[in-house]
Amino acid sequence: MPKIVRFHNIGGANVLRIEELPLSEPGKDEIRLKVETIGLNRAEVMFREGQYLEEPILPSRLGYEAAGTVDAVGSGISDIKIGDRVSTIPAFSIGRYGVYGESAIVPGCAVARYPDNLSTIEGAAIWMQYLTAFGALIEIGQLKKDNTVLITAASSSVGLAAIQITKAVGALVIATTRGVEKKQFLLDVGADHVIVTDEEDLAESVMTVTSGRGASLIFDPIAGHVLEKLANAAALRATIFEYGALSREPTIFPLFLSLKKGLMIRGYTLFEIVKDAEKLARSKRYIYDRLQSGALKPIIDRTFPLEAIVSAHQYLESNQQKGKIVVTV
Amino acid sequence: MPKIVRFHNIGGANVLRIEELPLSEPGKDEIRLKVETIGLNRAEVMFREGQYLEEPILPSRLGYEAAGTVDAVGSGISDIKIGDRVSTIPAFSIGRYGVYGESAIVPGCAVARYPDNLSTIEGAAIWMQYLTAFGALIEIGQLKKDNTVLITAASSSVGLAAIQITKAVGALVIATTRGVEKKQFLLDVGADHVIVTDEEDLAESVMTVTSGRGASLIFDPIAGHVLEKLANAAALRATIFEYGALSREPTIFPLFLSLKKGLMIRGYTLFEIVKDAEKLARSKRYIYDRLQSGALKPIIDRTFPLEAIVSAHQYLESNQQKGKIVVTV
Repeated sequence: MPKIVRFHNIGGANVLRIEELPLSEPGKDEIRLKVETIGLNRAEVMFREGQYLEEPILPSRLGYEAAGTVDAVGSGISDIKIGDRVSTIPAFSIGRYGVYGESAIVPGCAVARYPDNLSTIEGAAIWMQYLTAFGALIEIGQLKKDNTVLITAASSSVGLAAIQITKAVGALVIATTRGVEKKQFLLDVGADHVIVTDEEDLAESVMTVTSGRGASLIFDPIAGHVLEKLANAAALRATIFEYGALSREPTIFPLFLSLKKGLMIRGYTLFEIVKDAEKLARSKRYIYDRLQSGALKPIIDRTFPLEAIVSAHQYLESNQQKGKIVVTV
Repeated sequence: MPKIVRFHNIGGANVLRIEELPLSEPGKDEIRLKVETIGLNRAEVMFREGQYLEEPILPSRLGYEAAGTVDAVGSGISDIKIGDRVSTIPAFSIGRYGVYGESAIVPGCAVARYPDNLSTIEGAAIWMQYLTAFGALIEIGQLKKDNTVLITAASSSVGLAAIQITKAVGALVIATTRGVEKKQFLLDVGADHVIVTDEEDLAESVMTVTSGRGASLIFDPIAGHVLEKLANAAALRATIFEYGALSREPTIFPLFLSLKKGLMIRGYTLFEIVKDAEKLARSKRYIYDRLQSGALKPIIDRTFPLEAIVSAHQYLESNQQKGKIVVTV
């Protein structure tokens, strides 16, 4: 019987248990994946804690991203066959289809091939990060070469994907990080400027770098009291994407700054992209091509074995990582 | 010497004084208006209280909207001549150019003719309300026939302008008002549905009216705790325009709702339109044509003589009015 990660109570990392469960068969329009690698995401931490957009039904599976080989296909599936090397696109219920484990059933529309030049470890570090960043910056934000993009929590996998996508377009990247430890790393991966927020005033630094104009696109998963700072750092008519709730403080809407500057503050998740067949197809094509050319390249922080899933989650929550944490099965 | 309204201290309506000041001459690119009517706006109340986007330099004039006859033109003005019947567009400093008084100097680019079928009283009730509503709903919001527009504080002059513009496009209007007194009035001026917020749950009522879809465009000058309700009443991917700060409470950003629904919450003032020559020309043409055809028609609540300017401001703040308050000079 395959090992599957589930939790029976909401709570910290140690609610995660590895259990042996009977092998399931894919239903109509579903496929079964023999999982080789699992990409970890903040969404799973929030889901495990009962803080996510979706509520867990206990005991619950979890997990959005895995790479592996298709080992069974349900009825209605025509474009995927047993033996295909694919990875999952987070276009399903995290609880119902959770991919943490040796075997996972997912909807057939939620898997995609990835270029041969990527390893299976990199394969679990593609769709969440690049679709999230692509959807906001390119599909909605219409990012252009002359934009200045401010990327907060820039060392996360989505932050790094946003840096790569922005640089692929040729626009200017200002990245933020709390401590000085990750500054050089962010410069090395392509940020034009890095603001260390423990030491520098965010808005002041952005204004200095942009000669007083401010950032035209802002991509932020933190919210809370950070939003006011971002509004101060924003250019006239800037768009601020809020795509997470890392701070967990109440978020004050910067009313007067938004009136003065005509700011657009937009809640965003990648579900806007993955639930729209046309947008998803366009986004997948864009990302696949650039993964193949090397313009986009997943950055892996480290790997953990499946048995160490609790430690892997604890490490994810420690904010030490620079890039994706991947679990190997 | 012309009578001019100024205030020497920030504060309540009774800081307003009528003073006789020497007649000024228009400078380069300016014109002088013999004022016949003055349209009152919330902006002037907030400015007088030191709560506006612009800080008063005391003693300060005030006022954005007047109608009258041009009685002097400065150098550089070619398209306006003495005797022209015009009204002002709020495209200037409210303190430096304030139009409350018998005579006002304003930039030549900030006056416009209005159709002959409108009275001089209606002439002071055009540009602030229709440019504000047009800019948000049509120019930025791209209002279409199949949209549902939720308009809060709907009995204000801008709210009524938004109702008229939405109905001219053929979209559905849901208007809100606090008490039941103004409900019939709002239905009479074109609202398809009116929600009395003292008696009904805003989001629930909007969902009932829209068969659970919610409002696709929301136009709100209140903010504060109302924003959360609006987010609940919003459709997927709705745009919420915040164009004022009537509530004066802190405004919480509805983070989880905005993530779930992909909401866009946008600060907006008409300055986005009036400071952009191309947008202003397009907007003026649209409004002029529809004023001439009768599709748009300013709704005047009542008039006050200039001597009663303090009472006029007190009445504005009482929220009893249904439409524009105009001062006759």
